[in-house]
Amino acid sequence: MIETVVRPAVVLGGDLGGTSTRVLVARADGRRLGTGRAGPGNPTSSPELAASSLAAALATALQDVDPAAVQRVVLGVAGGSALTAGPRREEFAAVLSGAGLRVAPEYVGDVHVAYAAGTAAADGGVLVAGTGASVGQVRGGRLVRTASGHGWLLGDDGSGYWLGREAVRAALVALDAGQVPAGLPRTTLALLAERAGLAGPESLGEVPRAVDEPARTAWKRLVVHTVTSRSPVRLADLARLVTEAAEGGDGIAQDVVRRAGSALAASVAPLLVPDGPLVLAGGLVGPGAVVTAAVQGALADQGRAPNLVHAGPGEAGAAWLALAPPGSPVPDAAAVRERLGLPA
Amino acid sequence: MIETVVRPAVVLGGDLGGTSTRVLVARADGRRLGTGRAGPGNPTSSPELAASSLAAALATALQDVDPAAVQRVVLGVAGGSALTAGPRREEFAAVLSGAGLRVAPEYVGDVHVAYAAGTAAADGGVLVAGTGASVGQVRGGRLVRTASGHGWLLGDDGSGYWLGREAVRAALVALDAGQVPAGLPRTTLALLAERAGLAGPESLGEVPRAVDEPARTAWKRLVVHTVTSRSPVRLADLARLVTEAAEGGDGIAQDVVRRAGSALAASVAPLLVPDGPLVLAGGLVGPGAVVTAAVQGALADQGRAPNLVHAGPGEAGAAWLALAPPGSPVPDAAAVRERLGLPA
Repeated sequence: MIETVVRPAVVLGGDLGGTSTRVLVARADGRRLGTGRAGPGNPTSSPELAASSLAAALATALQDVDPAAVQRVVLGVAGGSALTAGPRREEFAAVLSGAGLRVAPEYVGDVHVAYAAGTAAADGGVLVAGTGASVGQVRGGRLVRTASGHGWLLGDDGSGYWLGREAVRAALVALDAGQVPAGLPRTTLALLAERAGLAGPESLGEVPRAVDEPARTAWKRLVVHTVTSRSPVRLADLARLVTEAAEGGDGIAQDVVRRAGSALAASVAPLLVPDGPLVLAGGLVGPGAVVTAAVQGALADQGRAPNLVHAGPGEAGAAWLALAPPGSPVPDAAAVRERLGLPA
Repeated sequence: MIETVVRPAVVLGGDLGGTSTRVLVARADGRRLGTGRAGPGNPTSSPELAASSLAAALATALQDVDPAAVQRVVLGVAGGSALTAGPRREEFAAVLSGAGLRVAPEYVGDVHVAYAAGTAAADGGVLVAGTGASVGQVRGGRLVRTASGHGWLLGDDGSGYWLGREAVRAALVALDAGQVPAGLPRTTLALLAERAGLAGPESLGEVPRAVDEPARTAWKRLVVHTVTSRSPVRLADLARLVTEAAEGGDGIAQDVVRRAGSALAASVAPLLVPDGPLVLAGGLVGPGAVVTAAVQGALADQGRAPNLVHAGPGEAGAAWLALAPPGSPVPDAAAVRERLGLPA
């Protein structure tokens, strides 16, 4: 039998994320030839930084590699096709050829890259939950459906943004009710007071359990002003308060986490593939995380128990996509993926 | 017995609203001496227009009145105290003295004005639901508690903004599910397509009931882009789609309205006064409105049946507050209120 697929000898995978740009150059057997990391890489959220971040990450990753040897370049980015057709296309092409790369890049959605970073299975579901949340279904190695991921204003229920917003809402409800119990509402108020430049826990210590109307009004103004004077996505910074409080047994936080799990499970459930894995990616749904357990619990309530897989690094997932085009099984795939730093 | 309260002979009430500024000059017996109306008057949402709107409304209202005869000025504005202490204070004071008024204005929260525009009762609850939503409790003629009203990002559940957001979310859910039934999701997509400058209902007619992935992605992008490229509060413009669809029997819209009613009822229920009225104000909860019925239904589910009163014009409510200080009953109050255009 003749091998009809010409497998690239050297590939480059990249993850153009909201907080960092990461690049990996690898051989066909998965061995790493170079890696690079730089600042924000998403051209939508960081239009002024993204191209220079990519240039910096490429420069480091290609230090010991002949860029002309790279035969395939796959870059993962949220809303991938924006770069395929959008106004930034030329700018990114120039950065790539400036780095000595001779092949045109392929832009792939971050949901697809997350899936590839979690499994080599041809069919399965994927849930990405970090600042935002989105889900997808892969069939035959292709991303055939996506859902959720509409951004903080319209969706992203169960995301880090949503957890942070629920923390603030719980604090406001407590103020409205005139009772600020220990736990999440109090921790949230303390952090917001700190951000507003007020003495946090100290002044909060003075808030009586029964908050009277003037104190209520003053605190509500502080909360609303502190939150609305920043970008709404910054609410995701408060997600940690919720997960830590939930881990510590706080009932309000556990309820928020439970609702996050339900929302995430509801969005991904229709996209699960029978007997296929569910890849989990993003900071909220790591191994052992409370939100992971909540998603698992909510799926179990629906009688679903998919095989959960935690995704490896996105740039390695992108490199895997460069090495393994749909319909072309990679010989010794498990070993290749292990060298890339990915689960089998 | 000696009457110790010197009741003003002529008062001026104003409503500095997000869409219009309205002013009413009235005599102590409620007879109207002049009215004026101009553009946006809220100094927070329209910082550049508010002062000139007030000047224009005052000029009209004081055409046939000696401004020096006005003995009390009460102006209602969302977040009232912002003008009492905020940076706009001097600017507004200059506008008022420029109009010939000789007394310092008293700024009152819009929730308090709404209550006064609905009832003369000393104790009761109030629910304001328009673009946003907020609730309050009045005791002895003073606003002693407020809740909700945290703005679109953090609260306002059940408000016009919230209804519009739920309409868009219902459309996105339909797209994700691959089915865009007739009714709210389809109407919402048609309107958004129109706003985006696409042929609305025509091109929508081409969306098959079973939406495939490319169509789904294209429509989702259109929706998210159209909504997020405008101010989030503009989502309130879509509220009408929801209420009209609910009136027409659409199940999705009715569910959204039901949830709005539950959210509004939940926020106001703790502030109700036994045997006291519940004043309803704002465009969403007018007489016969579906949201009004939903609020009433949700309160009934909790075993509460307050006497619902619909508020009259805000400027008349402000004039009433100018005429009726707490603790000083107005003689022949029902007739005075009737002349002001307010329910007894």
